[in-house]
Formats: sequence, structure tokens, C-alpha cells
Amino acid sequence: MYYLGVDIGGMSIKCGLVDEQGQIFCVKSVPTKAGDADAIISDIAALCKDVVEDFGINLVDVAACGMGIPGTIDAEKGVIRYANNIDFSFVPIVKEFNKLINIPTFIGNDANAAALGEAVFGSAKGCKDVVFVTLGTGVGTGIIVDGKMILGKYGAGGEGGHITLKVNGEACSCGRRGCWEAYASATALMRQTKEAMAKNPDSLLNKIATEDGGVSGKTPFKAARMGDKTAKKLVSNYVKYVADGIISLVNIFRPECVIVGGGVSKAGDDFIAAVQRRVSRYRYGGSSSPKVLVKVAKLSNDAGIFGAAALAIDGMKK
Amino acid sequence: MYYLGVDIGGMSIKCGLVDEQGQIFCVKSVPTKAGDADAIISDIAALCKDVVEDFGINLVDVAACGMGIPGTIDAEKGVIRYANNIDFSFVPIVKEFNKLINIPTFIGNDANAAALGEAVFGSAKGCKDVVFVTLGTGVGTGIIVDGKMILGKYGAGGEGGHITLKVNGEACSCGRRGCWEAYASATALMRQTKEAMAKNPDSLLNKIATEDGGVSGKTPFKAARMGDKTAKKLVSNYVKYVADGIISLVNIFRPECVIVGGGVSKAGDDFIAAVQRRVSRYRYGGSSSPKVLVKVAKLSNDAGIFGAAALAIDGMKK
Repeated sequence: MYYLGVDIGGMSIKCGLVDEQGQIFCVKSVPTKAGDADAIISDIAALCKDVVEDFGINLVDVAACGMGIPGTIDAEKGVIRYANNIDFSFVPIVKEFNKLINIPTFIGNDANAAALGEAVFGSAKGCKDVVFVTLGTGVGTGIIVDGKMILGKYGAGGEGGHITLKVNGEACSCGRRGCWEAYASATALMRQTKEAMAKNPDSLLNKIATEDGGVSGKTPFKAARMGDKTAKKLVSNYVKYVADGIISLVNIFRPECVIVGGGVSKAGDDFIAAVQRRVSRYRYGGSSSPKVLVKVAKLSNDAGIFGAAALAIDGMKK
Repeated sequence: MYYLGVDIGGMSIKCGLVDEQGQIFCVKSVPTKAGDADAIISDIAALCKDVVEDFGINLVDVAACGMGIPGTIDAEKGVIRYANNIDFSFVPIVKEFNKLINIPTFIGNDANAAALGEAVFGSAKGCKDVVFVTLGTGVGTGIIVDGKMILGKYGAGGEGGHITLKVNGEACSCGRRGCWEAYASATALMRQTKEAMAKNPDSLLNKIATEDGGVSGKTPFKAARMGDKTAKKLVSNYVKYVADGIISLVNIFRPECVIVGGGVSKAGDDFIAAVQRRVSRYRYGGSSSPKVLVKVAKLSNDAGIFGAAALAIDGMKK
């Protein structure tokens, strides 16, 4: 059997067919007509039909459809409560979609879907307890306990980017101070890099940033690998920020593995290894407590589609 | 039907009968013979028989027995993996107990049991998503998601006292720096009080501590209510420490309520109200996200027995 995975983003909607072995077929996309719920839903249905037809199968060969959505989802009712990127508010997307294509359909928050995708198809395959962390513009988390997502009331939970890392610390976009996101996101890393550059104008950081046409999430890692002291200190602090947030989640959930995704996760094996060392050493109970592996996310390009398909597979099991 | 609740502590073992309405009968206790597993198990069985007989019922009138244990529990296998206070290591307590009394028996960590007790009989009655926090010598947590405890691998999860509150902060007994426990426990509050007293020898804190024969968890609240500036600052910071740890858990779990127990929870309604204000204001999403109530734990004296009985009730549902 096949599963349709629909990845609804602010810019485009992507759709693909995924089988249970994790093979992906016929990925197609259309631009998102943000704000126009009817148009988006009919675009999704057309895209799904197109993909199925193109692959040479029929809708009866599709077991279910999953949709990953950037927002607050009421998965049980099939309703998008709020999604600012696509300007949706209380849209009964499953009911409307099923008027056009009548197959079992499951929706979920996109970060949660990505976590489920890694658990079903990716780095956490076979794990029942998984913490998924994305280090990107913000810090997102998806948490799976005993094979089930932590959703919270109205699917508003799992906002692990906004756990406290430093009380009274840096201002966070959420209005509070000291959130993990304000220290461990790619945005925060770039801010920390610029601060270090201003304080240490002779640092290799400045030279590399100039050569590369500006500061990126890669700048500090590149300079640190070349032996620059300022960059090494910067990376070492950043590792602590990432790891100490992960330790909070590990001490609560004791997952088998922590999957790190997002742009910064591609910083290199030495970065992930440094995070692993700190998590192993400082998790509560140390070596007498359950081991936890820190791994890089495996699904990258089509992670959204895999995640959405995983929602469908998961939904059919219930 | 009745349930036997057994509260196994380092000093004593308490046992009582609890009905589904939350009435408790015939509480009895014996000293704990720490380190002697056989003696403890036979003492528990004798205590249970004694309680049942004393109440004038028979063992057939008891639906199940629950035991709350201070340690790491493998609830599924009925084994205590590790409990340093009673010096137990890999004791198959359910199997051994059932040789003496053959009724359905369920075990759990005592902090988790206390959380379940509040959810079944106490301040969180009727709630399916609950965060329970104890502010005592340390900071303990018990987390219930959709009516089920978060246990983690080998029951080693739910160590919410060791989430990060301030990266690189105060040293914690667990070996790391900056854990919530190092800021929000009664022990931490007393340390903060002594520091404030040393820095402000003219503060009312010093006078009250002298009058009361030393610093206790009550000292700062008492002085703050009398208008002392140093104490007010101290309490305001402590509220922030407590609330910002709760916010971490709220942003992950979005519980319906947060129940605060332990010695400090008795500091007064104004303390809990101040924590509630900060949690309401600074939880992720603010007023657009689900409401969460902060309440004081209801079960105090017999909380351990209620918790253990709740384990039994919960176990029989599965």
C-alpha cells in the first residue's frame, strides 16, 4: 500500500507517495495561496490526484493521506486551529478535503510530523521514545513517548524551544527572557558570532565572514576548525546551550535517542559528538541512568512529505 | 471495592484502605527494616492483613494493592531496580509479595504516585493532563499525559527537578550546574535567604530568623509580608525561579493544571497567586494558548497512601 504525504508550507505545498519501506515517489508541488482556504484545499486535492495518476495507480491503492501543517492542530477533529504562515483560523481541512478525495486523512503539526517521520523512516527508526530537535530560525521540538506524540491541549504542546535555558537571560521572540530558542537557534548562533566578532576584531571569524560574504551558521564552526580561539570558545558555549536544553528533555523523557535536525545539525560530526559527550556526562544519574544517543536527522529534502506520510501510517494504526 | 495503599519510606512503611470516593480508613505503620528485603516484604504483607482485618472486611473485598517506592521502578515487571533509601537493588517485590498475599499488585515511584494521587483524589481530580511539582529538599515532578504517567526507560524519567534553569548557574547535587532544583527547592530558598541576610544585615530577615531560632522556608515570606524590601526582592526572584521552571513544563505538556506540593507550597495563597500570574503571562503563546491553573496540592498527611492506592486503581483499568 501507498500513503500520500502532503507538506503544507507558507510558500509551497508539496505532495508525494511513500510506501511502508520509506521509498518516495512522484514528488510534486504548487505555490501556497495563503489566506484562501478553499483554493488551498482544492489545490491539495488536485495535487494528490495528479501524483497518484502520474505514478500509474488509483486512489484505491492509497491507504491514507497525511498532512503536515505549520500551526496549532486539533488532530482528533481534523481542524487547523491557527496557522499564521498560511493565514488559517479554524479550518475543518479534513472534512473539506474528504469532499474532494474520500480517503482516511490525518493532520498534524509539521514539527511533530517531522519527528514522527524520523521515528518511522529516519534516524530514530524502531525507537518508541524519541526527542526530535530542530535548530533553525527557531528551535522546534517533537516528542514521542511510547510511540505517541506529546500533543498537549489543542495540540499546543511540544513547544520545547521555549523551555528555560537561562532565567532572566536573552530576550526571546515569545516575549519572555531566557528561552532555549534565544540561545540555541541558528539565529541565536549568528547573533553570538557577530557579538564575538565585534569584541575580537582580529579573530579569524571576521576574515571568514568577509570571504564568505557575511556571517552564517557555518562561520563559527569553520573558524574553530582552523584553530581560532574566539571561535572555539564560541562553539564550546553553543554546544553547552544546545546540550543543556537537550538534557532538560532527556531528564524528563529518557528517550532512546535525540534526533537533531535543521540547518545547524549539518555543522559536522564533531559538533554532534561534542553535544553527545555533554549529554552523556551531565544527564541526571550519569552513567547509572539509561543511555541516550544523539544523532543527526536523516530525512532532509523530503522530510515534510515523509513526516506527513508517517502521520497517515500512524493514524491507520489507531 | 477497596484498595490497599502502601507508602514505603526510608523510615517507615504506612498502609491504609482507600475507597474510590477517596475516603481513607485504618492507617497503620511499621518501621522500615532498610536493607532486608525479605523482612520488609513480610512486614508489608502483615500490615496489609492487619489493616483489612481491623476494618472488618476480607481480602476478597480488596480489588488491588498499590505500593509507592522511593526509587527507580520497573512497573511492568514489578521490580524495584534501585532504591537507595531502603537499600534495595533489583528486588522482584510484586512476585514475592504475591506469595504472601495474592491480589493484583502495582508498584510505582513515590513522586509519580503522589502525582497520580492528586489526579485521582486531590487538586487535579478529573484532569487528564497534569504536572505535579514538589518543592521540598529537592524539586520532584510527576507528569501525567492523557491520564498516563511519563515514566521513561526503566521508569527513570520525569526527573523534572533537573531541567536547566540557568546554564552555567549554581552547582546542583546531581553534578551539573544550573538545574531547576538548585534554584527552586526549599534548600535553595534557604541558601538564597542566608545570602540575602549576609548582604543585608539590617534586613528584617535577620531579626525574624533570630526570633524563630534559625532560617526556614517560611522566613522570607514572613519578612516580605511585613514589608521588608530585601525579603520582597528575594521572594520575587524565587517566584521567578519556580515559575520559569513550571513554564518549561507547561510549554512542553500544556497541562490543564500544575499542582504544587512540598513544604514551600504552604507558603501562602499570595505565593501561589504570584506563580500563577507569571505562568499565565509568560507561557508560550500567552493568552492565545490554553489556560493552565496553578494549584496547591490537596493531599498532605496521607498523600503517600492515596498515591499508592491511585496506582492500584490505575493498574486495574489497564
